Amino acid sequence: MKALLQRSDFRHLHPLRVRWAEVDPQGIVFNGNYLTYADVGITEYFRALGIAFPTDLARDGTDFFAVRTLLEYLAPARFDDEIAVGIRVSRLGRSSMTFSLGIWRGDSALTSGEIVYVLADPLSRSSRALPDWLRAKVRGFEVLPPAEQASQG
Amino acid sequence: MKALLQRSDFRHLHPLRVRWAEVDPQGIVFNGNYLTYADVGITEYFRALGIAFPTDLARDGTDFFAVRTLLEYLAPARFDDEIAVGIRVSRLGRSSMTFSLGIWRGDSALTSGEIVYVLADPLSRSSRALPDWLRAKVRGFEVLPPAEQASQG
Amino acid sequence: MKALLQRSDFRHLHPLRVRWAEVDPQGIVFNGNYLTYADVGITEYFRALGIAFPTDLARDGTDFFAVRTLLEYLAPARFDDEIAVGIRVSRLGRSSMTFSLGIWRGDSALTSGEIVYVLADPLSRSSRALPDWLRAKVRGFEVLPPAEQASQG
Amino acid sequence: MKALLQRSDFRHLHPLRVRWAEVDPQGIVFNGNYLTYADVGITEYFRALGIAFPTDLARDGTDFFAVRTLLEYLAPARFDDEIAVGIRVSRLGRSSMTFSLGIWRGDSALTSGEIVYVLADPLSRSSRALPDWLRAKVRGFEVLPPAEQASQG
Repeated sequence: MKALLQRSDFRHLHPLRVRWAEVDPQGIVFNGNYLTYADVGITEYFRALGIAFPTDLARDGTDFFAVRTLLEYLAPARFDDEIAVGIRVSRLGRSSMTFSLGIWRGDSALTSGEIVYVLADPLSRSSRALPDWLRAKVRGFEVLPPAEQASQG
Repeated sequence: MKALLQRSDFRHLHPLRVRWAEVDPQGIVFNGNYLTYADVGITEYFRALGIAFPTDLARDGTDFFAVRTLLEYLAPARFDDEIAVGIRVSRLGRSSMTFSLGIWRGDSALTSGEIVYVLADPLSRSSRALPDWLRAKVRGFEVLPPAEQASQG
Repeated sequence: MKALLQRSDFRHLHPLRVRWAEVDPQGIVFNGNYLTYADVGITEYFRALGIAFPTDLARDGTDFFAVRTLLEYLAPARFDDEIAVGIRVSRLGRSSMTFSLGIWRGDSALTSGEIVYVLADPLSRSSRALPDWLRAKVRGFEVLPPAEQASQG
Repeated sequence: MKALLQRSDFRHLHPLRVRWAEVDPQGIVFNGNYLTYADVGITEYFRALGIAFPTDLARDGTDFFAVRTLLEYLAPARFDDEIAVGIRVSRLGRSSMTFSLGIWRGDSALTSGEIVYVLADPLSRSSRALPDWLRAKVRGFEVLPPAEQASQG
């Protein structure tokens, strides 16, 4: 990841409140639970784009699989905190989609990260090209840098 | 539940160690996580009976669904505790199986409970009679009271 | 539990959306995760009463501990379902509070249950009488049957 | 991460069996749950070194905090799989410890990753130098490259 994203870099932010069961004996959210937050954020991101996840992909006999997750823990979230989970697509590859993640409490950045999904056939697990309708919806929502728009991966 | 079961009442006990992510800010296992322990206990109970769960049931087009769970929290489990999850079948109904649960740290009872599963068709969710091979395996493993053996439910 | 509560029996209902990570290979919410929903519901119930949980109790050197949870699974919740978690106090004992739980998708009852908390000293784990301010807040919010209001437990 | 580690690169491997509650509707372990496996692996790694975690660190008024987690999902783990969680220390900084993670089913690599912990004061969250006894135990267990042994971070 390059420069840290700002809260205003995320067109899509989803509010969540930290649950008791997500907090560990240190009094902070257990590190793995931020991937649950990211997952909720991505589902809501798709909803904001008018995509029903995973139904719309299943119609083509495909599904997304996480292939890489990177989280940097900048400051902890605590019980009952109201946080915002920001998701944006930072790259569209041939079959992969890279999401940037930013979790905020007010203007304080708590977590930043990157999640890479690959579209694949659920049985063979061989990758499939992202459908054009999906690319169009993402590009209509995000302003992706031209180099990224053309990239293959 | 009637009289509290003793550790020796369980022919099947499965050892587990409490994970950090399962413990809440009170420093004790979050109450819902004991149902994960119970679930692991039941899977291991079936394995002890020579039943592959859920594969052996899926072969008949059936699956078990939890319909009732009762937990009584007698004393808390804490991080890194070595506990034993005792499972026994206390009742076989027509389509239901009632498991008694006892969680122990040494000889200290931490949790007792009861979990009721119903065998059903996964699509219609209509109940199905427990297959004879399952009844036979349970009866061969447990000494069920005669009244319970004959019961229907 | 006696007669099943109706959705309208709950003055307090908290909306939740089912997360992907909460759903198991059967395509339904794993049974233990309903206790996380119940816990969120109780936190929000306290908030509706103007009680900061657990801070307001910690001020007296006390905390609530779950001593009993009962869930009946009437119908499953699935991924992305919008559900409502109803919580009401059905009994105030000397040191215990009994919550009735009802989880709904629209007017369909998915789960009903009962959760018993006991107020205690976190170190000695000896029970403490519920403070009068807490009783007053609950009675101001709920219409508890007179017999229950007088009960000791 | 450079070249992928082999199973034999891990002196410490901890066996786990995948639980039902950890598996999502795709029939594979939810991505965030691998961080729970990593956490269990690190606890067991410390135990193998003769370190009681987090007690031995708390004695110095310090605790470890995750600051970065990277996971690459190579192949999925499924319900009831017996897996091995390999942990090794790949770098000792001034206040940070970098763990390499490898999760295996037999000889198949399922997940590889990297987890960075920083030792800090739990209240001020300012970093603290790793104690010498900890460095000595890690170096006695692992064969760290000389450059890494001297590094500061």
